[in-house]
Amino acid sequence: MAAQVPKEFPRQTLGMINIDPLQTGGRLPQESKEVLLEWADGYSVCDFCAGRLDEISTPPISAFVHGDLPKFIGMDEARVTNGARESKFAVMHSMTKPGDTIVVDANAHYSTYVAAERAGLKVVAVPNSGPPEFLIDPQGYVAAIETEKPALAVLTWPDGSYGNLADARAVSRICAEHHVPLLVNGAYAVGRMPVNGSDIGCSFLAGSGHKSMASSGPVGVLGVTEEFAGTVFRRSGRFKNKELELLGCTARGATVMTMIASFPHVAARVRSWEEEVSKARWFAASMEGLGIVQLGQKPHNHDLMFFEAEPLFEMSKKAKDGRYFLYKELKARRIHGIKPGLTRHFKLSTFGVPKEDLKLVIEAFQEILGSRSS
Amino acid sequence: MAAQVPKEFPRQTLGMINIDPLQTGGRLPQESKEVLLEWADGYSVCDFCAGRLDEISTPPISAFVHGDLPKFIGMDEARVTNGARESKFAVMHSMTKPGDTIVVDANAHYSTYVAAERAGLKVVAVPNSGPPEFLIDPQGYVAAIETEKPALAVLTWPDGSYGNLADARAVSRICAEHHVPLLVNGAYAVGRMPVNGSDIGCSFLAGSGHKSMASSGPVGVLGVTEEFAGTVFRRSGRFKNKELELLGCTARGATVMTMIASFPHVAARVRSWEEEVSKARWFAASMEGLGIVQLGQKPHNHDLMFFEAEPLFEMSKKAKDGRYFLYKELKARRIHGIKPGLTRHFKLSTFGVPKEDLKLVIEAFQEILGSRSS
Repeated sequence: MAAQVPKEFPRQTLGMINIDPLQTGGRLPQESKEVLLEWADGYSVCDFCAGRLDEISTPPISAFVHGDLPKFIGMDEARVTNGARESKFAVMHSMTKPGDTIVVDANAHYSTYVAAERAGLKVVAVPNSGPPEFLIDPQGYVAAIETEKPALAVLTWPDGSYGNLADARAVSRICAEHHVPLLVNGAYAVGRMPVNGSDIGCSFLAGSGHKSMASSGPVGVLGVTEEFAGTVFRRSGRFKNKELELLGCTARGATVMTMIASFPHVAARVRSWEEEVSKARWFAASMEGLGIVQLGQKPHNHDLMFFEAEPLFEMSKKAKDGRYFLYKELKARRIHGIKPGLTRHFKLSTFGVPKEDLKLVIEAFQEILGSRSS
Repeated sequence: MAAQVPKEFPRQTLGMINIDPLQTGGRLPQESKEVLLEWADGYSVCDFCAGRLDEISTPPISAFVHGDLPKFIGMDEARVTNGARESKFAVMHSMTKPGDTIVVDANAHYSTYVAAERAGLKVVAVPNSGPPEFLIDPQGYVAAIETEKPALAVLTWPDGSYGNLADARAVSRICAEHHVPLLVNGAYAVGRMPVNGSDIGCSFLAGSGHKSMASSGPVGVLGVTEEFAGTVFRRSGRFKNKELELLGCTARGATVMTMIASFPHVAARVRSWEEEVSKARWFAASMEGLGIVQLGQKPHNHDLMFFEAEPLFEMSKKAKDGRYFLYKELKARRIHGIKPGLTRHFKLSTFGVPKEDLKLVIEAFQEILGSRSS
């Protein structure tokens, strides 16, 4: 963490305990920071390109894109993209035509809706079970598919609000029975936990480098089965080696290099996933001991958790800083990641955060709640 | 340049004289490398986001996107994108419908064709004048527009093959007279030379951070006139603050931060453009003294130049390494940037390369040609 402090643009959250779900899986290990500096300049990897990013052999981009990456995510083919949302748009734009309908889970990320809207699609959501768990029942896909005849189905696994992991295999089986290709948005899965697209049985798997693969953003991944690789990765008629949905080349500098440099670290950490889940459950239980209730799946299976904190909401009504009091109290304790203004409902992540730091977070909430009577 | 050498993935071209046009405008100044390290982690800037990347005030992304950037490029509105090609696709996807025709210059970059093909468009090219200058006559747009009734016109300014700067104002006037919006692809202009979209009179201006704005890629810019800002930057119906063509957010980490950190350096260097042009002309004249002919506009007005080298081509026929001999000879002299295998025709750039280094390049060609008789 011995980064030089630049004269301008200091990053105020460096050195704080950061529990923002956007941040916990995106931190670069030291070796990757060195690679970042080495490949900092603009189009650095293009010094070694004969026409296609994914075919560059030195540095070993080709070995990663056509070897390590598809194996890691269990998909026949993979590419590096500019992010999970760009992966999703590429799939939607290839697999549908404007006016088509797609079916998504009600917990889908906003970028799924935005990508669909950009592609001119109608979106129908499979409902969740509502509070307190907000579960997606795979059977919901049956009704939606039979009614809507969608061109594509999407499952957010886990979703970015509650960190719920629906039964992806069941969804996949239902989609297969109805001959609807399934896109799994694994932006909070790939790089955090073991994910194997062929075990799930999905046709497409999107992942996020900056969210969950310890990469400098924006960068993502897209896995595709052999069946649809020719569609999603179709080539230009005029420029035979350029893939249309990637506009030829995507992440062609420091972003792809940090993904590759971080890969051994990422591949190793997913093997400790059970410990991450235990830690998340311990954290949720500790919060519940303070009267802050964990919503979403229980027991929880992911580091991303959503909490309902009525006691903090009540405090905010009388606090000097109003609804900003929690943010300020935590900031004063060098804890970052709960959005300014939130007190009643907020999400956070324990991924990769040391247990000692999480204990400080629990203590902070305890202290803040303890000051109620004053 | 005192970057640490990482254990793995060394960048072999660091420290070499690099005259690859892709590289000369994308090198980061030292202050920007420090910012890169500070903001290295995944989604670093999102710690400070209330919902939209371009509205983040600390670090000063909002001030850049809504202040410095549109002023710098002379456009009403601007955004940061994932690259010039993504900027072009966003414009095409907003301003046309599948089946439409667009008119481009014959020197257009492959990514213009690929973006158009992805958007389902037919592309008609305004021819160039052929060898030796390959000029685009603005009058060519009249015929193409009147015949094809295009939804959009594109001018590559300068083009990436010959570094020719067509009369952009004349093209813009013709497009205006025919009520066809003009997109200028300034990937090799914005950040290298003074560019003012409103002086040109274009509706859209695309620029490249990694190619020409000393930024860590992939990152680009898109300027749009007020008239079309509501179309290109239209928002989602469901998520009211998300812009569809940007899929909500684009460059949200180290890439945008390096663009901002490099901006003072970039804004300063475009004021030395005349010196860059003089240096390019001196270099071209020196090469011609060796029998290597500069094709494209003459006298040349840009650092990107295309050469025809018959003497080197002749040598390659007898050389031990065949057509790779030039690459190897230059590499042995620590000079990089002419693609492996090229001898007869190649492009290079003198942008930001010190004259002393360019003298070494000239001497290298002299030496290589001098060994002919041996």
